[in-house]
Amino acid sequence: MPNYKVIYFNVKALAEPLRFLLAYGGIEFEDLRVSREEWPTLKSSMPMGQMPVLEVDGRRVHQSISMARYLAKQVGLVGADAWEDLQIDIVVDTINDFRLKIAVVSYEPDDDVKEKKLVTLNNEVIPFYLEKLDAIARENKGHFALGKLTWADLYFAGILDYLNYMTKTDLTEKYPNLKAVVDNVLGIESIKAWVEKRPVTEV
Amino acid sequence: MPNYKVIYFNVKALAEPLRFLLAYGGIEFEDLRVSREEWPTLKSSMPMGQMPVLEVDGRRVHQSISMARYLAKQVGLVGADAWEDLQIDIVVDTINDFRLKIAVVSYEPDDDVKEKKLVTLNNEVIPFYLEKLDAIARENKGHFALGKLTWADLYFAGILDYLNYMTKTDLTEKYPNLKAVVDNVLGIESIKAWVEKRPVTEV
Repeated sequence: MPNYKVIYFNVKALAEPLRFLLAYGGIEFEDLRVSREEWPTLKSSMPMGQMPVLEVDGRRVHQSISMARYLAKQVGLVGADAWEDLQIDIVVDTINDFRLKIAVVSYEPDDDVKEKKLVTLNNEVIPFYLEKLDAIARENKGHFALGKLTWADLYFAGILDYLNYMTKTDLTEKYPNLKAVVDNVLGIESIKAWVEKRPVTEV
Repeated sequence: MPNYKVIYFNVKALAEPLRFLLAYGGIEFEDLRVSREEWPTLKSSMPMGQMPVLEVDGRRVHQSISMARYLAKQVGLVGADAWEDLQIDIVVDTINDFRLKIAVVSYEPDDDVKEKKLVTLNNEVIPFYLEKLDAIARENKGHFALGKLTWADLYFAGILDYLNYMTKTDLTEKYPNLKAVVDNVLGIESIKAWVEKRPVTEV
Protein backbone atom coordinates (compact mmCIF):
# COMPACT_ATOMS: atom_id res chain seq x y z
CA MET A 1 0.00 0.00 0.00
CA PRO A 2 1.32 3.47 -0.85
CA ASN A 3 2.48 5.84 1.83
CA TYR A 4 -0.10 8.61 2.34
CA LYS A 5 0.42 12.01 3.94
CA VAL A 6 -2.27 14.70 4.31
CA ILE A 7 -0.73 18.16 4.70
CA TYR A 8 -2.96 21.01 5.91
CA PHE A 9 -3.51 23.48 8.70
CA ASN A 10 -4.68 22.21 12.10
CA VAL A 11 -8.32 22.35 10.98
CA LYS A 12 -10.90 20.04 9.45
CA ALA A 13 -12.20 22.24 6.59
CA LEU A 14 -11.03 21.14 3.13
CA ALA A 15 -8.86 18.26 4.32
CA GLU A 16 -11.47 16.46 6.41
CA PRO A 17 -13.13 14.71 3.44
CA LEU A 18 -9.69 13.27 2.58
CA ARG A 19 -9.15 12.13 6.16
CA PHE A 20 -12.67 10.61 6.21
CA LEU A 21 -11.97 8.69 2.98
CA LEU A 22 -8.64 7.37 4.24
CA ALA A 23 -10.19 6.40 7.58
CA TYR A 24 -13.10 4.71 5.80
CA GLY A 25 -10.69 2.61 3.75
CA GLY A 26 -8.67 1.68 6.83
CA ILE A 27 -5.64 3.33 5.21
CA GLU A 28 -2.96 4.54 7.60
CA PHE A 29 -1.82 8.09 6.84
CA GLU A 30 0.40 10.77 8.27
CA ASP A 31 -1.79 13.66 9.35
CA LEU A 32 0.64 16.57 9.09
CA ARG A 33 -0.70 19.83 10.52
CA VAL A 34 1.15 23.01 9.62
CA SER A 35 1.00 25.88 12.12
CA ARG A 36 0.19 29.44 11.05
CA GLU A 37 3.78 30.32 12.05
CA GLU A 38 5.33 27.67 9.79
CA TRP A 39 3.08 28.43 6.81
CA PRO A 40 4.81 31.48 5.27
CA THR A 41 8.08 29.55 4.82
CA LEU A 42 6.29 26.45 3.49
CA LYS A 43 3.82 28.18 1.15
CA SER A 44 6.14 28.37 -1.86
CA SER A 45 6.86 24.62 -1.66
CA MET A 46 3.18 23.77 -2.17
CA PRO A 47 1.64 23.39 -5.63
CA MET A 48 -0.26 26.66 -6.30
CA GLY A 49 0.91 27.87 -2.86
CA GLN A 50 -2.12 26.24 -1.25
CA MET A 51 -3.18 23.39 0.97
CA PRO A 52 -4.53 20.76 1.47
CA VAL A 53 -1.87 18.73 -0.25
CA LEU A 54 -1.77 14.95 -0.44
CA GLU A 55 1.50 13.07 -0.66
CA VAL A 56 1.35 9.62 -2.22
CA ASP A 57 4.72 7.85 -1.96
CA GLY A 58 6.39 11.27 -1.85
CA ARG A 59 4.56 12.68 -4.87
CA ARG A 60 2.57 15.81 -3.99
CA VAL A 61 -0.86 16.48 -5.45
CA HIS A 62 -3.45 19.17 -4.71
CA GLN A 63 -7.05 20.26 -5.43
CA SER A 64 -9.28 18.92 -2.68
CA ILE A 65 -12.07 17.49 -4.85
CA SER A 66 -9.68 15.87 -7.33
CA MET A 67 -7.83 14.25 -4.43
CA ALA A 68 -11.09 13.10 -2.83
CA ARG A 69 -12.16 11.46 -6.10
CA TYR A 70 -8.80 9.71 -6.32
CA LEU A 71 -9.05 8.39 -2.77
CA ALA A 72 -12.67 7.35 -3.35
CA LYS A 73 -11.44 5.08 -6.13
CA GLN A 74 -8.91 3.51 -3.75
CA VAL A 75 -11.53 2.80 -1.08
CA GLY A 76 -14.41 1.68 -3.31
CA LEU A 77 -16.79 4.64 -2.91
CA VAL A 78 -17.21 5.43 -6.62
CA GLY A 79 -19.85 4.32 -9.12
CA ALA A 80 -19.93 1.15 -11.22
CA ASP A 81 -19.65 3.01 -14.55
CA ALA A 82 -19.21 6.46 -16.11
CA TRP A 83 -22.89 7.36 -15.74
CA GLU A 84 -22.92 6.48 -12.04
CA ASP A 85 -19.73 8.46 -11.50
CA LEU A 86 -21.36 11.42 -13.24
CA GLN A 87 -24.23 11.36 -10.71
CA ILE A 88 -21.71 11.49 -7.85
CA ASP A 89 -19.60 14.21 -9.50
CA ILE A 90 -22.68 16.39 -10.10
CA VAL A 91 -23.65 16.48 -6.45
CA VAL A 92 -20.07 17.00 -5.27
CA ASP A 93 -19.67 19.94 -7.67
CA THR A 94 -23.01 21.33 -6.48
CA ILE A 95 -21.87 21.12 -2.85
CA ASN A 96 -18.66 22.83 -3.91
CA ASP A 97 -20.58 25.63 -5.66
CA PHE A 98 -22.47 26.07 -2.40
CA ARG A 99 -19.23 26.21 -0.41
CA LEU A 100 -17.75 28.81 -2.78
CA LYS A 101 -20.83 31.02 -2.59
CA ILE A 102 -20.53 30.96 1.18
CA ALA A 103 -16.75 31.46 1.17
CA VAL A 104 -16.76 34.47 -1.14
CA VAL A 105 -18.96 36.30 1.37
CA SER A 106 -17.35 34.89 4.50
CA TYR A 107 -13.85 35.97 3.38
CA GLU A 108 -14.94 39.39 2.02
CA PRO A 109 -12.50 41.83 3.68
CA ASP A 110 -14.68 44.96 3.33
CA ASP A 111 -17.27 44.97 6.15
CA ASP A 112 -19.85 47.08 4.29
CA VAL A 113 -19.66 44.93 1.17
CA LYS A 114 -19.85 41.80 3.32
CA GLU A 115 -22.94 42.97 5.18
CA LYS A 116 -24.74 43.63 1.91
CA LYS A 117 -23.77 40.29 0.40
CA LEU A 118 -24.76 38.44 3.58
CA VAL A 119 -28.39 39.42 3.04
CA THR A 120 -28.62 37.66 -0.34
CA LEU A 121 -26.54 34.75 0.91
CA ASN A 122 -28.71 34.10 3.97
CA ASN A 123 -32.11 34.87 2.43
CA GLU A 124 -31.71 33.35 -1.01
CA VAL A 125 -28.56 31.35 -1.72
CA ILE A 126 -28.38 29.19 1.39
CA PRO A 127 -32.08 28.14 1.46
CA PHE A 128 -32.01 27.48 -2.31
CA TYR A 129 -29.05 25.10 -2.08
CA LEU A 130 -30.20 23.40 1.12
CA GLU A 131 -33.65 22.70 -0.31
CA LYS A 132 -32.20 21.27 -3.53
CA LEU A 133 -29.64 19.15 -1.69
CA ASP A 134 -32.24 17.98 0.83
CA ALA A 135 -34.51 16.87 -2.03
CA ILE A 136 -31.62 14.92 -3.59
CA ALA A 137 -30.90 13.27 -0.23
CA ARG A 138 -34.58 12.40 0.18
CA GLU A 139 -34.74 10.76 -3.28
CA ASN A 140 -31.59 8.81 -2.47
CA LYS A 141 -32.79 7.70 0.96
CA GLY A 142 -30.21 9.46 3.13
CA HIS A 143 -27.48 9.50 0.51
CA PHE A 144 -26.52 11.92 -2.25
CA ALA A 145 -26.29 9.60 -5.24
CA LEU A 146 -27.19 6.10 -6.44
CA GLY A 147 -29.33 5.49 -3.35
CA LYS A 148 -26.28 4.27 -1.45
CA LEU A 149 -23.10 5.40 0.26
CA THR A 150 -20.66 7.15 -2.10
CA TRP A 151 -17.83 9.62 -1.64
CA ALA A 152 -20.33 12.48 -2.11
CA ASP A 153 -21.74 11.62 1.33
CA LEU A 154 -18.28 11.60 2.93
CA TYR A 155 -17.41 14.83 1.16
CA PHE A 156 -20.45 16.63 2.60
CA ALA A 157 -20.14 15.17 6.09
CA GLY A 158 -16.44 16.05 6.03
CA ILE A 159 -16.82 19.74 5.17
CA LEU A 160 -20.07 20.44 7.02
CA ASP A 161 -18.38 21.77 10.18
CA TYR A 162 -16.48 24.22 7.98
CA LEU A 163 -19.68 25.36 6.24
CA ASN A 164 -21.38 25.76 9.62
CA TYR A 165 -18.40 27.75 10.89
CA MET A 166 -18.47 30.13 7.91
CA THR A 167 -22.24 30.63 8.08
CA LYS A 168 -22.34 30.73 11.91
CA THR A 169 -25.32 28.36 11.84
CA ASP A 170 -26.31 24.69 11.88
CA LEU A 171 -27.09 24.20 8.20
CA THR A 172 -28.72 20.77 8.47
CA GLU A 173 -30.95 21.72 11.43
CA LYS A 174 -34.15 22.11 9.40
CA TYR A 175 -33.23 19.58 6.72
CA PRO A 176 -33.85 16.03 7.97
CA ASN A 177 -32.58 14.34 4.80
CA LEU A 178 -29.28 16.20 4.92
CA LYS A 179 -29.02 15.27 8.57
CA ALA A 180 -29.61 11.64 7.56
CA VAL A 181 -26.68 11.81 5.10
CA VAL A 182 -24.40 13.09 7.85
CA ASP A 183 -25.69 10.60 10.44
CA ASN A 184 -25.18 7.74 8.00
CA VAL A 185 -21.55 8.75 7.48
CA LEU A 186 -20.80 9.47 11.14
CA GLY A 187 -22.35 6.13 12.05
CA ILE A 188 -19.76 4.14 10.11
CA GLU A 189 -17.41 2.46 12.62
CA SER A 190 -14.17 3.53 10.91
CA ILE A 191 -15.34 7.15 10.61
CA LYS A 192 -16.55 7.13 14.20
CA ALA A 193 -13.14 5.90 15.33
CA TRP A 194 -11.42 8.68 13.34
CA VAL A 195 -13.71 11.38 14.74
CA GLU A 196 -12.93 10.15 18.26
CA LYS A 197 -9.18 10.18 17.81
CA ARG A 198 -8.69 13.29 15.63
CA PRO A 199 -7.37 16.50 17.17
CA VAL A 200 -10.14 18.68 18.56
CA THR A 201 -10.29 21.91 16.55
CA GLU A 202 -12.86 24.70 16.29
CA VAL A 203 -13.05 24.62 12.48
CA MET B 1 -24.93 5.48 -29.63
CA PRO B 2 -26.97 7.54 -27.16
CA ASN B 3 -28.84 10.64 -28.25
CA TYR B 4 -27.01 13.77 -27.02
CA LYS B 5 -28.41 17.26 -26.61
CA VAL B 6 -26.45 20.27 -25.31
CA ILE B 7 -28.79 22.94 -23.89
CA TYR B 8 -27.35 26.42 -23.26
CA PHE B 9 -27.58 30.05 -24.26
CA ASN B 10 -26.38 31.10 -27.72
CA VAL B 11 -22.81 31.46 -26.47
CA LYS B 12 -19.66 29.37 -26.20
CA ALA B 13 -18.73 29.94 -22.54
CA LEU B 14 -19.37 26.93 -20.27
CA ALA B 15 -20.89 24.70 -22.97
CA GLU B 16 -18.10 24.96 -25.51
CA PRO B 17 -15.86 22.34 -23.84
CA LEU B 18 -18.80 19.91 -24.09
CA ARG B 19 -19.31 20.77 -27.76
CA PHE B 20 -15.55 20.36 -28.37
CA LEU B 21 -15.57 16.92 -26.73
CA LEU B 22 -18.58 15.72 -28.72
CA ALA B 23 -17.08 17.08 -31.96
CA TYR B 24 -13.73 15.44 -31.13
CA GLY B 25 -15.44 12.09 -30.70
CA GLY B 26 -17.39 12.47 -33.94
CA ILE B 27 -20.59 12.28 -31.89
CA GLU B 28 -23.66 13.91 -33.45
CA PHE B 29 -25.53 16.13 -30.99
CA GLU B 30 -28.40 18.55 -30.92
CA ASP B 31 -27.02 22.00 -30.14
CA LEU B 32 -30.03 23.65 -28.53
CA ARG B 33 -29.58 27.38 -27.92
CA VAL B 34 -32.05 29.07 -25.58
CA SER B 35 -32.75 32.76 -26.17
CA ARG B 36 -32.72 35.29 -23.30
CA GLU B 37 -36.46 35.72 -23.92
CA GLU B 38 -37.20 31.99 -23.54
CA TRP B 39 -35.00 31.53 -20.48
CA PRO B 40 -37.30 32.81 -17.67
CA THR B 41 -39.97 30.24 -18.55
CA LEU B 42 -37.43 27.42 -18.94
CA LYS B 43 -35.27 28.15 -15.88
CA SER B 44 -37.36 26.18 -13.39
CA SER B 45 -37.21 23.06 -15.61
CA MET B 46 -33.40 22.95 -15.38
CA PRO B 47 -31.59 21.15 -12.56
CA MET B 48 -30.47 23.90 -10.13
CA GLY B 49 -32.09 26.44 -12.48
CA GLN B 50 -28.88 26.69 -14.47
CA MET B 51 -27.36 25.78 -17.81
CA PRO B 52 -25.48 24.23 -19.53
CA VAL B 53 -27.45 21.04 -19.35
CA LEU B 54 -26.67 17.83 -21.19
CA GLU B 55 -29.38 15.43 -22.23
CA VAL B 56 -28.34 11.82 -22.72
CA ASP B 57 -31.21 9.74 -24.11
CA GLY B 58 -33.62 12.19 -22.51
CA ARG B 59 -31.97 12.15 -19.09
CA ARG B 60 -30.84 15.64 -18.02
CA VAL B 61 -27.56 16.21 -16.21
CA HIS B 62 -25.74 19.39 -15.23
CA GLN B 63 -22.45 20.73 -13.79
CA SER B 64 -20.15 21.61 -16.68
CA ILE B 65 -16.98 19.95 -15.41
CA SER B 66 -18.74 16.76 -14.34
CA MET B 67 -20.36 16.56 -17.78
CA ALA B 68 -17.05 17.22 -19.52
CA ARG B 69 -15.39 14.40 -17.56
CA TYR B 70 -18.24 12.07 -18.53
CA LEU B 71 -17.95 12.94 -22.22
CA ALA B 72 -14.15 12.63 -22.05
CA LYS B 73 -14.61 9.01 -20.97
CA GLN B 74 -16.85 8.41 -23.99
CA VAL B 75 -14.33 9.86 -26.46
CA GLY B 76 -11.13 8.44 -24.96
CA LEU B 77 -9.55 11.61 -23.56
CA VAL B 78 -9.07 10.38 -19.99
CA GLY B 79 -6.07 8.78 -18.29
CA ALA B 80 -5.11 5.11 -18.18
CA ASP B 81 -5.58 4.78 -14.42
CA ALA B 82 -6.72 6.66 -11.30
CA TRP B 83 -3.37 8.43 -10.88
CA GLU B 84 -3.39 9.70 -14.46
CA ASP B 85 -7.00 10.87 -14.09
CA LEU B 86 -5.97 12.71 -10.94
CA GLN B 87 -3.35 14.68 -12.91
CA ILE B 88 -6.03 15.72 -15.43
CA ASP B 89 -8.58 16.56 -12.73
CA ILE B 90 -6.07 18.74 -10.86
CA VAL B 91 -5.38 20.98 -13.83
CA VAL B 92 -9.08 21.20 -14.79
CA ASP B 93 -9.97 22.21 -11.22
CA THR B 94 -7.13 24.76 -11.27
CA ILE B 95 -8.45 26.26 -14.53
CA ASN B 96 -11.88 26.34 -12.93
CA ASP B 97 -10.54 28.13 -9.84
CA PHE B 98 -9.02 30.67 -12.23
CA ARG B 99 -12.35 31.09 -14.05
CA LEU B 100 -14.22 31.60 -10.77
CA LYS B 101 -11.75 34.21 -9.52
CA ILE B 102 -12.30 36.10 -12.77
CA ALA B 103 -16.09 35.63 -12.77
CA VAL B 104 -16.61 36.85 -9.22
CA VAL B 105 -15.06 40.19 -10.19
CA SER B 106 -16.53 40.34 -13.69
CA TYR B 107 -20.09 39.81 -12.40
CA GLU B 108 -19.72 42.12 -9.37
CA PRO B 109 -22.76 44.43 -9.62
CA ASP B 110 -21.34 47.29 -7.53
CA ASP B 111 -19.02 49.41 -9.71
CA ASP B 112 -16.87 50.72 -6.84
CA VAL B 113 -16.37 47.27 -5.38
CA LYS B 114 -15.60 45.91 -8.84
CA GLU B 115 -13.00 48.57 -9.58
CA LYS B 116 -11.19 47.79 -6.35
CA LYS B 117 -11.26 44.04 -6.92
CA LEU B 118 -10.09 44.45 -10.53
CA VAL B 119 -6.74 45.79 -9.30
CA THR B 120 -5.90 42.63 -7.37
CA LEU B 121 -7.32 40.44 -10.12
CA ASN B 122 -5.27 42.03 -12.89
CA ASN B 123 -2.05 42.63 -10.97
CA GLU B 124 -1.87 39.48 -8.89
CA VAL B 125 -4.40 36.74 -9.57
CA ILE B 126 -4.28 36.58 -13.36
CA PRO B 127 -0.46 36.63 -13.73
CA PHE B 128 -0.12 34.08 -10.91
CA TYR B 129 -2.45 31.57 -12.57
CA LEU B 130 -1.17 32.16 -16.10
CA GLU B 131 2.44 31.63 -15.03
CA LYS B 132 1.59 28.42 -13.16
CA LEU B 133 -0.52 27.07 -16.03
CA ASP B 134 2.10 28.05 -18.60
CA ALA B 135 4.74 26.16 -16.62
CA ILE B 136 2.51 23.06 -16.53
CA ALA B 137 1.97 23.35 -20.30
CA ARG B 138 5.73 23.70 -20.84
CA GLU B 139 6.48 20.57 -18.78
CA ASN B 140 3.82 18.67 -20.71
CA LYS B 141 5.01 19.88 -24.12
CA GLY B 142 1.97 21.87 -25.21
CA HIS B 143 -0.53 19.88 -23.16
CA PHE B 144 -1.83 20.16 -19.60
CA ALA B 145 -1.32 16.62 -18.32
CA LEU B 146 0.45 13.35 -19.09
CA GLY B 147 2.46 15.00 -21.91
CA LYS B 148 -0.35 14.29 -24.37
CA LEU B 149 -3.82 15.39 -25.41
CA THR B 150 -6.43 14.99 -22.67
CA TRP B 151 -9.78 16.59 -21.92
CA ALA B 152 -7.98 19.24 -19.85
CA ASP B 153 -6.66 20.72 -23.11
CA LEU B 154 -10.11 20.75 -24.72
CA TYR B 155 -11.59 22.21 -21.56
CA PHE B 156 -9.16 25.15 -21.59
CA ALA B 157 -9.35 25.76 -25.35
CA GLY B 158 -13.14 25.59 -25.09
CA ILE B 159 -13.57 28.22 -22.37
CA LEU B 160 -10.70 30.54 -23.34
CA ASP B 161 -12.87 32.90 -25.40
CA TYR B 162 -15.13 33.30 -22.38
CA LEU B 163 -12.17 34.03 -20.08
CA ASN B 164 -10.85 36.56 -22.61
CA TYR B 165 -14.29 38.16 -22.82
CA MET B 166 -14.58 38.52 -19.05
CA THR B 167 -11.03 39.90 -18.65
CA LYS B 168 -11.21 42.04 -21.82
CA THR B 169 -7.78 40.76 -22.83
CA ASP B 170 -5.96 38.02 -24.75
CA LEU B 171 -4.85 35.85 -21.85
CA THR B 172 -2.47 33.58 -23.79
CA GLU B 173 -0.73 36.45 -25.62
CA LYS B 174 2.43 36.42 -23.50
CA TYR B 175 2.28 32.72 -22.65
CA PRO B 176 3.61 30.63 -25.55
CA ASN B 177 3.00 27.27 -23.86
CA LEU B 178 -0.64 28.10 -23.19
CA LYS B 179 -0.92 29.23 -26.79
CA ALA B 180 0.55 25.86 -27.83
CA VAL B 181 -2.16 24.01 -25.86
CA VAL B 182 -4.85 25.98 -27.65
CA ASP B 183 -3.20 25.63 -31.08
CA ASN B 184 -2.87 21.88 -30.57
CA VAL B 185 -6.58 21.59 -29.85
CA LEU B 186 -7.74 23.94 -32.60
CA GLY B 187 -5.50 22.08 -35.05
CA ILE B 188 -7.43 18.81 -34.63
CA GLU B 189 -9.48 18.24 -37.80
CA SER B 190 -12.76 17.43 -36.03
CA ILE B 191 -12.45 20.49 -33.76
CA LYS B 192 -11.52 22.68 -36.72
CA ALA B 193 -14.63 21.49 -38.56
CA TRP B 194 -16.80 22.28 -35.52
CA VAL B 195 -15.31 25.76 -35.10
CA GLU B 196 -16.01 26.48 -38.78
CA LYS B 197 -19.63 25.38 -38.65
CA ARG B 198 -20.67 26.62 -35.18
CA PRO B 199 -22.82 29.75 -34.85
CA VAL B 200 -20.70 32.91 -34.69
CA THR B 201 -21.16 34.51 -31.25
CA GLU B 202 -19.31 37.23 -29.38
CA VAL B 203 -18.86 35.19 -26.20
